[in-house]
Amino acid sequence: MIEFINKGGVTTPLGFAANATAADVKANKKGNLDFTVLVSDEALEVSAVFTTNLVKAAPVKYDMDLLSRQSEKYGVVVNSGNANACTGGKGMKACEDITSEFERLMELPERSLFICSTGVIGNQMPVERMLAKAQELVDGVEDDKGDLFAKAIMTTDTVAKECAVIVHTDRGSYCIGASAKGAGMIDPAMATLLGFVTTDADIKADKLNKILAEVVENTFNSITIDGDRSTNDTLLVLANGMSDVPVSTDDELALFKDALTQVCKKMALAMVKDGEGATKLVTINVQGAKDSAQAKLCAAKIANSLLVKTMFAGCDPNWGRLMSTAGSSGAVFDEASVSIWFDTLHYVKNGEIVDPALEKKVYEIMKTPEYSITLDLGAGGGEAVYYTCDITKEYVAINADYRS
Amino acid sequence: MIEFINKGGVTTPLGFAANATAADVKANKKGNLDFTVLVSDEALEVSAVFTTNLVKAAPVKYDMDLLSRQSEKYGVVVNSGNANACTGGKGMKACEDITSEFERLMELPERSLFICSTGVIGNQMPVERMLAKAQELVDGVEDDKGDLFAKAIMTTDTVAKECAVIVHTDRGSYCIGASAKGAGMIDPAMATLLGFVTTDADIKADKLNKILAEVVENTFNSITIDGDRSTNDTLLVLANGMSDVPVSTDDELALFKDALTQVCKKMALAMVKDGEGATKLVTINVQGAKDSAQAKLCAAKIANSLLVKTMFAGCDPNWGRLMSTAGSSGAVFDEASVSIWFDTLHYVKNGEIVDPALEKKVYEIMKTPEYSITLDLGAGGGEAVYYTCDITKEYVAINADYRS
Repeated sequence: MIEFINKGGVTTPLGFAANATAADVKANKKGNLDFTVLVSDEALEVSAVFTTNLVKAAPVKYDMDLLSRQSEKYGVVVNSGNANACTGGKGMKACEDITSEFERLMELPERSLFICSTGVIGNQMPVERMLAKAQELVDGVEDDKGDLFAKAIMTTDTVAKECAVIVHTDRGSYCIGASAKGAGMIDPAMATLLGFVTTDADIKADKLNKILAEVVENTFNSITIDGDRSTNDTLLVLANGMSDVPVSTDDELALFKDALTQVCKKMALAMVKDGEGATKLVTINVQGAKDSAQAKLCAAKIANSLLVKTMFAGCDPNWGRLMSTAGSSGAVFDEASVSIWFDTLHYVKNGEIVDPALEKKVYEIMKTPEYSITLDLGAGGGEAVYYTCDITKEYVAINADYRS
Repeated sequence: MIEFINKGGVTTPLGFAANATAADVKANKKGNLDFTVLVSDEALEVSAVFTTNLVKAAPVKYDMDLLSRQSEKYGVVVNSGNANACTGGKGMKACEDITSEFERLMELPERSLFICSTGVIGNQMPVERMLAKAQELVDGVEDDKGDLFAKAIMTTDTVAKECAVIVHTDRGSYCIGASAKGAGMIDPAMATLLGFVTTDADIKADKLNKILAEVVENTFNSITIDGDRSTNDTLLVLANGMSDVPVSTDDELALFKDALTQVCKKMALAMVKDGEGATKLVTINVQGAKDSAQAKLCAAKIANSLLVKTMFAGCDPNWGRLMSTAGSSGAVFDEASVSIWFDTLHYVKNGEIVDPALEKKVYEIMKTPEYSITLDLGAGGGEAVYYTCDITKEYVAINADYRS
């Protein structure tokens, strides 16, 4: 059984502790929490997913290298306000200087801490300002500060995103906690997605890797198009085994996967809901595609269309934009076979409106903050789901003024 | 020699005449010019390019069929305000009813007129209101009403787009006129692009087809991504030969291609400049790509990135967004080899800023209404150019409220 825990986060599982402070990483936004550390009492099993962008930020390169090393891992240092991307050799040195100082202060082995950054690309990290805060951060590490961690990783996010579940099994109970940041489904806009999952379950990295790949596909990767990720996107899953509850049999692995999916989906949807300037969470269901790959193509294209997303902002039942976007998605279908539902309202059948009088009802649905649109392409059995939000004037304001 | 003609348009070439009226195609926007006809005194050689969207509007299907017929062609009827897309059998019948009525009134052969529509998708055409205006339209056809034609095809365009050139050759002079509409480079937004080119040059359709394919690639197709076109996109080139100036030798064909390129580029750039809510025309030059296909991938990705386009709106020298977008474009390069120029200012070299103090100069360039950005990927000899505009709050307002 899987239960969500009220106010849970990355420090909910046993043996995880955190702290956060304002290091003024962004010189012109002083006093905001922007520097944080998350650490485990015992060595970690780690699984990770990194951006597929050819241009990778220094911390991504650092972490990819670290993951391949045999060293024991204990946690992660994260800053917001500076992406440490396109920063050359100095950027790599910043990663080494920061992590090694924390390793020294916490008496951890060398190369035991990951590092993640999010913020503006192309500026060098204010390493001295950050190192000056390291002792303070380390001194204040406690096992109930997951909320500070969640706050310190935010950039244009308006709410902190965290959750935790307790999973009851025949061999005892364990927790999974998570925190994430990202301005949501603003693809192809490459807002950095950082996700951190902690668990005290006793699960090995090779099992974690397999499960994570599948879970990511239906959660974080269903709010963004493959290959169009930021320079910094990183999802770290940290397992310290301290619950002493083993996750190794097929049933146990299936239950863990279910719990991890629920946690990741909750974080992914929280990102969409908090999309920059967004006011709507819209679920795009595509069914009846020739196969699931075509269904995903079509759902992704609709979920990313500017015209569709501005139509959501305007609550405009302009279904022609759905048809036109589907038609340019690469999915193959006959427009005369298409059905469209808004929630459960059947609005388009055989490619034409069922009844123009229904437009007002569709408008009422589109005025609500969360609804679904289902397209049946009538071409086969392929299905896919995408989660998206609207694009508002506020989105443009945020992105036109992001650095000012 | 090719000269632009002041106030030229589709009726500048010999033997072309037009008229336009308000047929109230959009019931709630009365009195605007929205219905127009363009006709030639003599039968036409025709070349055309249509949308690649799987969902094609009825007039596109009608015109594709018509083009394949042996019948003589004389002109085109166009309306704005209704796209006649996703309208099933009724939509096809509307095309037939409207064109055949104009053919009857103008005493033209059956199936001699094309039809184009642009506007909202999914509504049936107000055929009766349109037919009621046919006699008035036909009675007023004159050879100096190209400007009315250009106005009547506008939707969210803020300025009418037309031009004409006179081409001097050893065998005499001929004209090429053009008019186009489209809210510009708002890909992947599928604003309908309609383009009409008229010429009194004596050129055969098979030669026209070959030239048009090449010209479109570097003009209209460099302001939009292939495969992501509207349901209605149509470009018609109509040649009536009435200048009696032949275009048949290699030199003559090359000169014609040059003139057609200038005309199409002028229309394409006019569309970008008039992009919905746009305030900037930005030319994206990509050079040093592995090959020209990768250069085009990269230029197109940058030209279409929401984060890049909002950065243009904010005049923000946030070059990291250029790097990140290039990195997710599919082009292969080493970030440490990248150079970036704003106009002629070398801002990024070997993947890093040349001098942070240049940021103010870049800002000054980005405040101007037209500038270029050049990326050298340092990976080979591939080059491509794309034309794009900024995305402003006004864009969202236009598209959120388009039907209201």
